[in-house]
Order: sequence, then C-alpha cells, then structure tokens
Amino acid sequence: MGRDAHGDPSGPPEGERVVVAVDVMGGDHAPAEVLAGARRAVEAGAGVELLLVGRPEALAGAEDLPSLAAAEVIEMGDDPGASVRRKKDSSLVRAAEAVRDGRAAAMFSAGNTGAAMASALLRMGRIRGVSRPAVATPLPVPGTTPTVLLDAGANAECAAAWLVQFAQMGSAYARTRYGLAQPRVGLLSIGEEASKGTPLVKEAHLLLQELPGIDFVGNVEGRDLLSDDLDVVVTDGFTGNVALKSLEGALRCLREALRPLVSAEVWPAIAPVLEGLDPEVYGGAMLLGVEGVCVIGHGSSSATAVANGIAVAAELVRIDLVGALRAAVAPPLPM
Amino acid sequence: MGRDAHGDPSGPPEGERVVVAVDVMGGDHAPAEVLAGARRAVEAGAGVELLLVGRPEALAGAEDLPSLAAAEVIEMGDDPGASVRRKKDSSLVRAAEAVRDGRAAAMFSAGNTGAAMASALLRMGRIRGVSRPAVATPLPVPGTTPTVLLDAGANAECAAAWLVQFAQMGSAYARTRYGLAQPRVGLLSIGEEASKGTPLVKEAHLLLQELPGIDFVGNVEGRDLLSDDLDVVVTDGFTGNVALKSLEGALRCLREALRPLVSAEVWPAIAPVLEGLDPEVYGGAMLLGVEGVCVIGHGSSSATAVANGIAVAAELVRIDLVGALRAAVAPPLPM
Repeated sequence: MGRDAHGDPSGPPEGERVVVAVDVMGGDHAPAEVLAGARRAVEAGAGVELLLVGRPEALAGAEDLPSLAAAEVIEMGDDPGASVRRKKDSSLVRAAEAVRDGRAAAMFSAGNTGAAMASALLRMGRIRGVSRPAVATPLPVPGTTPTVLLDAGANAECAAAWLVQFAQMGSAYARTRYGLAQPRVGLLSIGEEASKGTPLVKEAHLLLQELPGIDFVGNVEGRDLLSDDLDVVVTDGFTGNVALKSLEGALRCLREALRPLVSAEVWPAIAPVLEGLDPEVYGGAMLLGVEGVCVIGHGSSSATAVANGIAVAAELVRIDLVGALRAAVAPPLPM
Repeated sequence: MGRDAHGDPSGPPEGERVVVAVDVMGGDHAPAEVLAGARRAVEAGAGVELLLVGRPEALAGAEDLPSLAAAEVIEMGDDPGASVRRKKDSSLVRAAEAVRDGRAAAMFSAGNTGAAMASALLRMGRIRGVSRPAVATPLPVPGTTPTVLLDAGANAECAAAWLVQFAQMGSAYARTRYGLAQPRVGLLSIGEEASKGTPLVKEAHLLLQELPGIDFVGNVEGRDLLSDDLDVVVTDGFTGNVALKSLEGALRCLREALRPLVSAEVWPAIAPVLEGLDPEVYGGAMLLGVEGVCVIGHGSSSATAVANGIAVAAELVRIDLVGALRAAVAPPLPM
C-alpha cells in the first residue's frame, strides 16, 4: 500500500497518548487562547499529549509542557507558498516537520490556512496517488451524522478527476470517522439534473457515475448540505468555501437576531442547536491527502475551538484516517 | 436612453393599477395555490390587477378574473431553451408576450425557472447594452435593507465583463428599490485579498476597481452575505445559486431543529425572524436585464409566496426598475 516510513500515524491502541503539535503562534487570539485551549484539550482526558510550537517568549507560563522552539511566524496575510518557502523556522513549518519526523502524530493550527496547508503538503508529503489534497469540513446536521464537505477551500480551481478523488477521500472519512458502511456522496450543483451546472460538474458527474466503491447519489444543491440524505458532498474549493461560509454567516446572523428575543430561561433550550452548528464546536477543517493529520481551526478560534480542534486531531490519529485515505485512493491492483 | 416601444412598464403613478400576468400552470402546487395567491395579492389592496395565463380548465372557478388562454404547459423538467421554442402556446411564453405587447406590466411564475428566464429574454428582449440578464435575489438581513445577490442562477458560467454589468444592475436595483444613495457592492470570493479566488474573480476585481459610479468595497465572503456591511454582492450564477440555496437550507434546518424545543408561547417571538429570511415571504427572484419585469417564485411556492411575488412584481413596475436598469447599463455619451 506504499506507506512511507516517515511520520506514519497509523492507529495507536485506544487509550495510548497521541502527540499533537500545536502552532502556538497561529490565530487572531494567539498565543493566549491557543495555550488555554491546548491545556483544556489535555485536561479533557482524551489522551492528548502536546508539543507546543512557537517562539520561546510566547510559551511563557507553559514551561511545564513539551515544546519546540520556532523563531519565525507566518502572519495571517502572508502569501502561503512564499512564506512557507522563506520562513523555514516558522511555527507552522516546524509543526509539520514534527509530524513528518514522528515527534508528533498530528498538527493543529488556527493560523494562516493556506500556509498551514502548504506546510503540511511540503513537509509531510502527499499520499501516493493523490492529485490534490483537499480541505474537508464536517457540517453538523441536527439529529444525525455530519455531512463531509470537500473541497472547502484548498483548490479554488479543480479538474474533474480531482473531484473524483475528493469523493473517495470523503467516503473514507465518513466511513472511518462516522462508521457509515456506504456513505452517500453528492456532487454540488445548481439542480439535480445531470445536464445542469458548469462543464466541470458535468464532467465530474459522468466520472462519478462510473466510479466503483462509491455510492454516488447524483447532483445535489446547496439546500441539501444540512440534510439527512447525504454523507459527503464534493465540489471545487471556491464553491465549497463560499457554501461553508454562507452557512456560517446564516447561523451567526440567526443567533444574533434570536438572542434578544428569547428570555434567559428559554435560551438554554435552543442554544445547543445553534452551537452545535458552530465551527467553534465541531473542531475545524482537515487537510485530506497528506501523509499525516493536519487540522486547521478558524482564525478567530477561542480556547474552546482550539481544544476541540486538538481533540479532533487526536481522534483522526486514533482511527487511522491517513491509512484509510491511502487505501481509498490507492490504484486497484492489476488482476 | 433608447427605450423600446414595446411593453415599456415605466412607472405608473402611485395608486394606479399594475397588471401582472400570472402563469397559473407553474409550480408544484399549481394551479390551486397560484390562483389562491393571485386572489390574495389583489385583495391585499396593493393596486394589482391580474391577467391569469393558463389552460382554460385550470382557470375554472376564476372566471371573474381577466385571463389569457394558453394550451400548453412547460413542465418543471423540460429543457428551458427547447421548450420555449417548441411550446409557443405555453402559459410561460404567453405571459412574457403579454408583457411585450403591453397587456401586462410584469409577469410572475413559480414554474420552470430556466424556461421563465428564456421566455422573458426571447419575448421581451434584452435591455440595450446588457450582455447577459441575471437573476437578482434580495437576501433579507435582520434589522436593515436586504443584500441583493446576483447572479443567483441564470448564467452558470460568466465572463468578467458580465459581473461588471451585474454590479451596475444590482446597484440600480438597491438604489431604486431600497432608496440607497450609493449601494456598497462586493465581489464574492474566498478571502478579502484581491489575490485570492478564481481567474474570473481576479479579472472582475480589477474591472470593478476601475468602474465609475459604483461603490466597490472589494472581495467579500459567504459569511458577509447577511451582514449590514454590504448592499449588493455579485458572482457567477453557479456560485450565487449554491450560496443562496445554502442559506435557505441552513434556515430550514434551524427552523426544524428549533421548533420542537420552543414552547407554543415562545415560538411567536422568534418565528418572525425565521420567516423573514424565508423566500416564501420575501417574494422570489427577479430577472434583471430584460425589457420588462419578470419575477420568478420557488417551485414549491405556497399561496403566500405567490401573493408576495406578485406584489413584488407590481412594486418593481411602480418604481420603474426597468428604466433604472436601462440607465445603469447605458453606455456613457461620447464627450
């Protein structure tokens, strides 16, 4: 199956500690909220061990925790590719190297998303056979398992063959993380008819129809994202990112509009529904297709979001998501 | 300003009746809900006069209202272009012809969206200078004027120059309908930076920066759609449709999740917020760029949605939206 020697995070036994490299410098509220969230992840008892990565002065007060010094910081506005090439001693690059070198089993960052992806891709390497890694975001659906949306932003432009791999990786994710035997995969479009959409969608539709091992249910629409009829939705990274952020915006807008209308007694009844759909709670996005676990939080991540993101990273290591992805995109053996 | 002789709906004085041609055959609940909604629109006292268009048998019980017989029906699954060409005696084509011929000032349909657009485009004609008509959908934002999203689905693929016209038409819409002196226009992308997005977005960004008469605020994201920082958002019809339906899906999902959690006493306090964001209430989408008012409701439109859509159609006639659009895209006079 072509497993690389480096940084192989294949499933430690239940209960064993998982080391997560945490980019202490990343995010709007770094380092304070990141450190607070990291501690919370450990205290939650999920078997997480930390490897804090960042500037020594940012790690003040966290001397009791294992750390890795990195002198540079990739800022939120930095160009992803250029900054990863130039800032070789940045916390993001060092965190990805820690996974590559086996010092950590996963990395978490709430920093520059593009640079986090570039660091993971360049330092951990690509899973053999993967054309383009994709960002997967589980969209929480009340009352059922989340819908895995990918690509949620890694590739603004896509080839149809990449969408096919996104379907394979998304299925592997839904199978491995949510225990679904045969995840239902939809292709995001502007109508259920195969004749609708862009040339990319039409071409991908034909390829997905022919794809063995995938339960392709056809084209779906934006309104299906949070439905119980789907487990995985594939699309290009531009459309996926817009859809994801539209959902987040709608949720935030509704929460703000509803809050003043509801009494303090009633709010606790409805808040969990609104919070369950909040990216702060569900733990951020994962880069699928690289040789290691890389979880990326919102730039605005609070300590709660950081703790949840780290817990998700550890979970993905435990279930050996990377192994499942390797198997999902491996070319079939010659008969 | 090059007004055509045919079907000019330029602003009847306040209080004068506006004739709206209503496609009685269009929509999942046609003709019953359409007829009920049409009656409701008249009874609401908004100065609407009906011209019902459809099969005589579908008009049974509505003999007291003016009507126009059409023997054919364009079904929801029919190919838009082909059906409009073939079914010349369909309710959609006849409704568009009624506007062209001045028998009605606007048309409303909850039927096949693509066929409604094709009928309007082919029968009413394009406003001079418009490259491609676009669907505009006002997204309700609690506490402020709606954000006008276009293109919400007419053109799955777009050229950058079309997005520039969408900005002009969307601005004209927000100015004319919501009284905004200088609507703020955003370009939908996956980050605020001009360097992010697809080649289409990057090219459109440069063109919009140079465009006189438009308050271009730069690139915006999905989460900004329902914010108070924007009045118009332009994008291609694929992305716009996915964003719109993602919002609708999020809203529906939240409503269904919240309903059982809230007592019958509390629900009336929060229902208006949820309903205010409902396309049933805000009246559907408008095709901008054709020589007449064309409002398109959801296929699932109830009588309420039909009544609201007809009222919006009449409002767009009264404010002379078509005249404002003609002026907005008219080429500047040679100096």
